[in-house]
Amino acid sequence: MSKNFIMIDGNEAASRIAYAFSEVAAIFPITPSSPMGEHADAWAAQGKKNLFGQTLEIIEMQSEAGAAGAVHGSLTGGALTTTYTASQGLLLMIPNMYKIAGELLPTVFHVSARSIAAQSLSIFGDHSDVMGVRQTGFGLLASNNVQEAQDLAAVAHLASLESRIPFVHFFDGFRTSHSIQKIEELDYETLRSMLDMKYVEDFRKVGLRPEDPMVKVGAQNPDVYFQGRETVNNYYAATPEIVRKYMKMFEKKTGRSYDLFEYIGAPDAEKIVVGMGSGMDTVKETVEHLVKKGEKVGAVIVRLYRPWSGEDLRKVIPESVKKIAVLDRTKEPGAPGEPLYLDIVQTLVGRNIEIIGGRYGLSSKEFTPAMVNAVYDHVDGAAFHDFTVGITDDLSNKSIPVKENIDVEQDGIVRCKFWGYGSDGTVSANKNSIKIIGTETDMYAQAYFSYDSNKSGGYTVSHLRFGNKPIRSEYLLTKSEFIALHRPQYIGRFDILEGIADGGTFLINTTEEPENVFNNFTKKMQDEIIEKNVKVFAIDGFKLAKEAGLGNRINTVMQVAFFKLAKVIDPDKAIELVKKYVEKQFIKKGKEIVEQNWKAIDMAVDAVQEVPVPKKAEKSVEDTVLVPEDGSEFGKKIVEPIWRMKGDQITVAEMPVDGRIPTGTKRIEQGGRPGPVITKWAAKNELTQNMDVQWDEAYFEYPGSCMGCGEVPYIHLISQLYGDRMMIANATGCSSIYGGTFPAVPYTTDSKGYGPIWANSLFEDNAEYGFGMRLAVDANRR
Amino acid sequence: MSKNFIMIDGNEAASRIAYAFSEVAAIFPITPSSPMGEHADAWAAQGKKNLFGQTLEIIEMQSEAGAAGAVHGSLTGGALTTTYTASQGLLLMIPNMYKIAGELLPTVFHVSARSIAAQSLSIFGDHSDVMGVRQTGFGLLASNNVQEAQDLAAVAHLASLESRIPFVHFFDGFRTSHSIQKIEELDYETLRSMLDMKYVEDFRKVGLRPEDPMVKVGAQNPDVYFQGRETVNNYYAATPEIVRKYMKMFEKKTGRSYDLFEYIGAPDAEKIVVGMGSGMDTVKETVEHLVKKGEKVGAVIVRLYRPWSGEDLRKVIPESVKKIAVLDRTKEPGAPGEPLYLDIVQTLVGRNIEIIGGRYGLSSKEFTPAMVNAVYDHVDGAAFHDFTVGITDDLSNKSIPVKENIDVEQDGIVRCKFWGYGSDGTVSANKNSIKIIGTETDMYAQAYFSYDSNKSGGYTVSHLRFGNKPIRSEYLLTKSEFIALHRPQYIGRFDILEGIADGGTFLINTTEEPENVFNNFTKKMQDEIIEKNVKVFAIDGFKLAKEAGLGNRINTVMQVAFFKLAKVIDPDKAIELVKKYVEKQFIKKGKEIVEQNWKAIDMAVDAVQEVPVPKKAEKSVEDTVLVPEDGSEFGKKIVEPIWRMKGDQITVAEMPVDGRIPTGTKRIEQGGRPGPVITKWAAKNELTQNMDVQWDEAYFEYPGSCMGCGEVPYIHLISQLYGDRMMIANATGCSSIYGGTFPAVPYTTDSKGYGPIWANSLFEDNAEYGFGMRLAVDANRR
Repeated sequence: MSKNFIMIDGNEAASRIAYAFSEVAAIFPITPSSPMGEHADAWAAQGKKNLFGQTLEIIEMQSEAGAAGAVHGSLTGGALTTTYTASQGLLLMIPNMYKIAGELLPTVFHVSARSIAAQSLSIFGDHSDVMGVRQTGFGLLASNNVQEAQDLAAVAHLASLESRIPFVHFFDGFRTSHSIQKIEELDYETLRSMLDMKYVEDFRKVGLRPEDPMVKVGAQNPDVYFQGRETVNNYYAATPEIVRKYMKMFEKKTGRSYDLFEYIGAPDAEKIVVGMGSGMDTVKETVEHLVKKGEKVGAVIVRLYRPWSGEDLRKVIPESVKKIAVLDRTKEPGAPGEPLYLDIVQTLVGRNIEIIGGRYGLSSKEFTPAMVNAVYDHVDGAAFHDFTVGITDDLSNKSIPVKENIDVEQDGIVRCKFWGYGSDGTVSANKNSIKIIGTETDMYAQAYFSYDSNKSGGYTVSHLRFGNKPIRSEYLLTKSEFIALHRPQYIGRFDILEGIADGGTFLINTTEEPENVFNNFTKKMQDEIIEKNVKVFAIDGFKLAKEAGLGNRINTVMQVAFFKLAKVIDPDKAIELVKKYVEKQFIKKGKEIVEQNWKAIDMAVDAVQEVPVPKKAEKSVEDTVLVPEDGSEFGKKIVEPIWRMKGDQITVAEMPVDGRIPTGTKRIEQGGRPGPVITKWAAKNELTQNMDVQWDEAYFEYPGSCMGCGEVPYIHLISQLYGDRMMIANATGCSSIYGGTFPAVPYTTDSKGYGPIWANSLFEDNAEYGFGMRLAVDANRR
Repeated sequence: MSKNFIMIDGNEAASRIAYAFSEVAAIFPITPSSPMGEHADAWAAQGKKNLFGQTLEIIEMQSEAGAAGAVHGSLTGGALTTTYTASQGLLLMIPNMYKIAGELLPTVFHVSARSIAAQSLSIFGDHSDVMGVRQTGFGLLASNNVQEAQDLAAVAHLASLESRIPFVHFFDGFRTSHSIQKIEELDYETLRSMLDMKYVEDFRKVGLRPEDPMVKVGAQNPDVYFQGRETVNNYYAATPEIVRKYMKMFEKKTGRSYDLFEYIGAPDAEKIVVGMGSGMDTVKETVEHLVKKGEKVGAVIVRLYRPWSGEDLRKVIPESVKKIAVLDRTKEPGAPGEPLYLDIVQTLVGRNIEIIGGRYGLSSKEFTPAMVNAVYDHVDGAAFHDFTVGITDDLSNKSIPVKENIDVEQDGIVRCKFWGYGSDGTVSANKNSIKIIGTETDMYAQAYFSYDSNKSGGYTVSHLRFGNKPIRSEYLLTKSEFIALHRPQYIGRFDILEGIADGGTFLINTTEEPENVFNNFTKKMQDEIIEKNVKVFAIDGFKLAKEAGLGNRINTVMQVAFFKLAKVIDPDKAIELVKKYVEKQFIKKGKEIVEQNWKAIDMAVDAVQEVPVPKKAEKSVEDTVLVPEDGSEFGKKIVEPIWRMKGDQITVAEMPVDGRIPTGTKRIEQGGRPGPVITKWAAKNELTQNMDVQWDEAYFEYPGSCMGCGEVPYIHLISQLYGDRMMIANATGCSSIYGGTFPAVPYTTDSKGYGPIWANSLFEDNAEYGFGMRLAVDANRR
């Protein structure tokens, strides 16, 4: 079988496999899992076939609760069914998950694991959601990167069919779901060769059919329920071996090896960490680095979390191990420890090992080699249990110290960072670049994009890696050989050159002449450039794009400059490929567009100019003022570092304890318009279609909160007033409030999705549930 | 303070306290918690005041998800808010529970803990639901009986206000929620003396108010979410001491002592069990019995399960302990052990104690002193982990052997069992009797009622205990001094005299003359009566009731016979009291009704006749045939024992593994009408208002399942056909199918509750979600 490589993200990798194994998918979108359903929907529309020659049937429901109900119903009818979800979406599936597991219905839920809203909502990744369903009787299988999101998705489907245990197959939200990597494709031929149709037929046989009616039990009483509940034990006991069977079969077919628990590191390690998810790739990288240096460290990667096989775990831990730190990417306040830690303690009773547990990476908090190192140091040092790594906890003092970044990445790696802003084309251009390199060369590539909460016009930072081996660094760039600044306005706001390598390259898109560029840097940038011998180049992307007829779309120009300077591959070859891809991309829009782009490419090649770097700077620019000197404490301590992308440095004691923050944070940036003074209350019947201009303050008298994220609409209302216009969000969508814009995702009562309605009708629709609303006039605004 | 005793059940006990401490209650009914909301609603309608002089505001929502949202919103607005729920209802609250805890909003959810639907639904009690929310950040406080359901409800409210940690206060569904006991009442004066208004004011201060607007955080990103999540640590750390503070304060005020963990048993015990909930009262009773016999056994009662305080647990376990069995009333398939067990293992690391975990009492499965004994034996014997007690597991062999019942109840106890049937008044009469005894004498009383799944016309068995000390036997009667059979038709079907004491009394309601009564017993009954010197009495309740003008209502007559024969209190005094209570109860309906009842009472006193018991029976009746000789395997192995109330004896291997059972189980009893033969399928547009008579088979093409219990409507449809008429159940209500009748709990789409609509409109309403429906004609029925 010839190997075929593809450049895709984790969501697409999992969704491809789910498609192959399913007849029905019941879906409801939630970040960061939505693309899985969207891919499936698009493929079905194109008539793509599953392994059985059928087109997937997609049912979009009114919420994740409905999706889970539809999955249960569809499985009950004997159709192979899947779904995709995360976070609160997964929580809404819990009641049906108990049922599906209790009835031994094989299925796989693909989950891009995400935080659960607590003191605040977060769309980012950790294991709070999947850990929140560990009690349902589902199997839980963890993938650590895009390749695995594909491979273990297949293992999950195969094992579920044979074992009759339903599975959650999960991978880290954003870090894996949205990371683009070059992976080996699994084709249908391979999948079919591993699938024994006997299990599919067995499943279909127990489906309910009117021709052969059976009852699925409605109610069991104290006399028999307990016995009924214990009938599943042998199925769970058999499952770990079934999962391993498919992992081994998989290895035979593809050469890629997996096991329930995998030990990595020194065979005589004395201290190890245990964990699961993308962080374990970083642990692996760090362990290899430390072992090379002679340290006796190791780690256990947990893949099959449920059903738990203690026996298998005990086998892989070397006799030499004396100390273990278990890393959980979740927090369960009030528990004696996080879930993985508790299981490890139980499993290793009787072995003389000191075991502690810690938390890391909540909500996609970075988890770097330096932090892994810090955990090993902690195990040898203070070694207290219930520690945190990656933050500074000056309130409950649970955090451990982390030393400076260490570079443990593979030899010959090239790391490139791009500063852009939403909708400027930077991210698309980078996706294009890695596709070119990943597809047209033998190199491996990885791309991860970080955004702020602004949907459009906010910053984007692209983190690209290129190397000769698969890339397993699952964290943002800590060092960059190449940095490009597509938006010069960021100078003085962000730490643009953070982590630039000695002798690295810095490209700036600017309208300044080369000789003026250096003087327009901050002092800190100038010092870094001089000290690290950074080569600086400039290009006037806007001018070139305009000349080529591309308007403000600087992406093609900047891409060419990147290929010319970064030299990841031969620049001449690269530029030919960019032209080829441009043609492929735009030919539908007409030859003219293609030629405009070609023109831009040709111009860009010659337009890159080196910026002269003096021994010492003559002058420099000051940092932009974001929060005025006389700004509020909250503005200075929380808002300012967040706006400078230094929010990681905010300590626990500085954060609000219960999620309450002052209103009008957006106004700080807009010059600090004063807060509202309430002068008048509206009666209920004064609510009008034009309330957004008539009223400035509104709240529900009995606000319900969203059953998805748990946000209270009242909150949204209060906040929205400082946005463009007043909108209301509830169960079907959420507003992003914290330090960002307030996109309009309005309330609807028909459960169909998104569409604007006004507060007046919201009030009317919900009056029967005790919702009421009051409005007030803000004197400052009149 | 004078002590006031009241006769109430666990739901009422908890609801009284919740009312006192709350301004708002957001409710949605679910068995067995519904009476808590119903009481609150009724009290509010009567204008009852809370501790602050206000009437509780009740908001009934469209589901438990909505109730949780309303609680969150109401708390956010600064109103003290509570709710009551169980099982799937609690699961639907999970997303909001994370939010409420994350925002440090004090509240108490009162939960009558109930099984979660898995292989089947069950309305009965265990800890699956509360264990399913242990990850949310709520505190969890367990009450073991009615007295505690009142007392610890108060502790939960007080501790939540001071600690800012929201609590789930739970007690066992049915066993505590529906058990009537005589308890000491907590009055408002006492409650007020323990409440520091400072904490109420603090809570109100952080409520969102338009006058002083704050934002509750919408979204936090990777930069700050982790830090925000860790801000709560000190609050959780402080909570156990706060809970203890109120327990100690409570003891001072009331004399009733509680602690986070309570040790009972021998100070030098070598083997102990650990657990929580009503089962621990039975453990306590058994431990006292065993310690008296000199056994070195003990137990730890866990009251504060979250936040977990390992330090406190370690302190109460004697140094002498060598072996622990942790008893969990839940099952989490695939885990290395149940949750309480895992926490205990973690807590006792480093102490040389062998710890195993086991399951008991799922779905109100009986947990008796004999089973407690069996656990101690197991710890000394095979001592394997992951055992079950109370069932026979011949499939995965996890059950441990239980020897015959042991009687560990208090001296002078009188135990009375009554066999009645739904709506015959037996249960009401018994409630009345224990109220008389509990209120008018110094005796303690307990009443528990077991029903089958038939709403009306099914059996009822009343289990009453009377004693001189508070009654702590939290299981059905295993021995009875008095047994009354109100429905003679049960002879030959149920084991009427099971557990009758030597020299006990048996009362039968019968139309037979006394000399014919004995010959109409089964051989087994006759042998028991003779062997145990049982005194037998007969009364013709129906004749007397009719003569007194009471129609079929035999309750007053039977109650008098009970008081005359059981002699729990002086019969003459008792009969005076019965008259007094009858007057109180019926005076509103007119003097005539009262006099009819008085007449019945007077007649009944003289109508009880002793039944002559021969040395040897002349003839006897055979057991009723329930499942014919040529009945199905399922009929004989499962249906027959369930119908005979011997379902406890059904083994694990005999139960269906995935909840699927044959259709038409009801028909077995009706003579075994053959199954349906599908002759014709209806087109969708053939659905009519009269489908219940036109069609006999129906199913959804894409059945969703109920997001509450997870049942698939299709299932209900198939089953309903063999009931009286065709009805559909879904999210707002469920049908009871298993071995019982099929009450009509129809589908509505308006989310308002229950009301009949027909399949045709169900189809139309749900077509957009992919529901479809097909109907078929059953040739056997035409």
